[in-house]
Amino acid sequence: KSGEMAKLTQLIDNEVFRAYATYATIVLLKMMLMSLITAYFRITRKAFVNPEDTASFGKGESAKKFLRTDPDVERVRRGHLNDLENIVPFLGIGLLYALSGPELSTALLHFRIFTGARIAHTFAYLIPLPQPGRGLSWAVAYSVTISMAYKVLKTALYL
Amino acid sequence: KSGEMAKLTQLIDNEVFRAYATYATIVLLKMMLMSLITAYFRITRKAFVNPEDTASFGKGESAKKFLRTDPDVERVRRGHLNDLENIVPFLGIGLLYALSGPELSTALLHFRIFTGARIAHTFAYLIPLPQPGRGLSWAVAYSVTISMAYKVLKTALYL
Amino acid sequence: KSGEMAKLTQLIDNEVFRAYATYATIVLLKMMLMSLITAYFRITRKAFVNPEDTASFGKGESAKKFLRTDPDVERVRRGHLNDLENIVPFLGIGLLYALSGPELSTALLHFRIFTGARIAHTFAYLIPLPQPGRGLSWAVAYSVTISMAYKVLKTALYL
Repeated sequence: KSGEMAKLTQLIDNEVFRAYATYATIVLLKMMLMSLITAYFRITRKAFVNPEDTASFGKGESAKKFLRTDPDVERVRRGHLNDLENIVPFLGIGLLYALSGPELSTALLHFRIFTGARIAHTFAYLIPLPQPGRGLSWAVAYSVTISMAYKVLKTALYL
Repeated sequence: KSGEMAKLTQLIDNEVFRAYATYATIVLLKMMLMSLITAYFRITRKAFVNPEDTASFGKGESAKKFLRTDPDVERVRRGHLNDLENIVPFLGIGLLYALSGPELSTALLHFRIFTGARIAHTFAYLIPLPQPGRGLSWAVAYSVTISMAYKVLKTALYL
Repeated sequence: KSGEMAKLTQLIDNEVFRAYATYATIVLLKMMLMSLITAYFRITRKAFVNPEDTASFGKGESAKKFLRTDPDVERVRRGHLNDLENIVPFLGIGLLYALSGPELSTALLHFRIFTGARIAHTFAYLIPLPQPGRGLSWAVAYSVTISMAYKVLKTALYL
């Protein structure tokens, strides 16, 4: 059994795989932060969507008025959904890319630019920055994922 | 070629990895169930969003009245989106955690609590239970994911 | 170090894993395409959601009228969310399935049908085709994922 374990941990000993593990975890933690920011704005703006969430504000009409949408809450939620749409491809394609034997320096470049661009995207969305700030950061992360997908298909293509 | 296959299947022979495979599959099947529950409520509540989905109810105005939102449908959809937001990080961070060489008992504890909390979250959302039922189950699963992320970064950090 | 790398790249040398890598990447690229289609419709229909996105159309009321929903934009967005709901389970369960030692021909059958069904689903959603076109393509991809989940649990179950 220790032999199997040794082979398993070899994966996490590989530097490219460790880099993937690090940046994938960072970008997922960043995405998870969006849930806390949504909760923060829902509570401070008093803007909820589920009746049971407003029960502590009293009964009937007095609580019902907090069942409403708020521009700040909706903005964070759009940023969260955009994260899902872009981080899910990075997770999948990035894992396959890390296993396709790229140069460590090339892999680090991909992971760092993607992570930096998605963090910039969040700031651009939440502040908000004037366009093309958000659009540009989105496009950079998108392009990095396409570049990794190209390497995966070049290395592994088996239709 | 059989040598490679042997190494590949060693991954699935490892007990921590098998536990991850089991709980990741369970939690994904649970998430997939949300699609069926949404379909069930759309059909029983006659609340659709695409015009082509109401064609069997007749033409023109008689079908158009079924293009509407329904509170039960929207509730399931919110639960489904919350699953995506929380199960995607578990899938990614949990895989890396399983490869980072945790104790089997510790890993099982993490996977079981996460899975239990997300199942509880679904019940809390759909019944619905009074707060803080849903909030608590959400926070427990969220904390488990953070704990796994900490272990991954401690083991693999390579910036 | 080269020994570790050799073991890592063995994963991508395995034919079942290569097939998974190929189809997972294709289906993720297809999902990423939805972002571009959304952007295309937002720009051609002039239907935006963030005030900063309409700044180039002028100030005040003249720009504000472009902050609106458009049926075509919303349709693409629903297709994109449906992709997320169904491709995330395929990514996770498919990876575990590829590691559970299936026959190459059986694995290819699963990956090809899933990918074909999801591409058909996108066409059915965007054209749109009359039902049950979209429903059927959704159900086929869903069933393939369930079939892979069954194999994973049969091979790896460790509760």
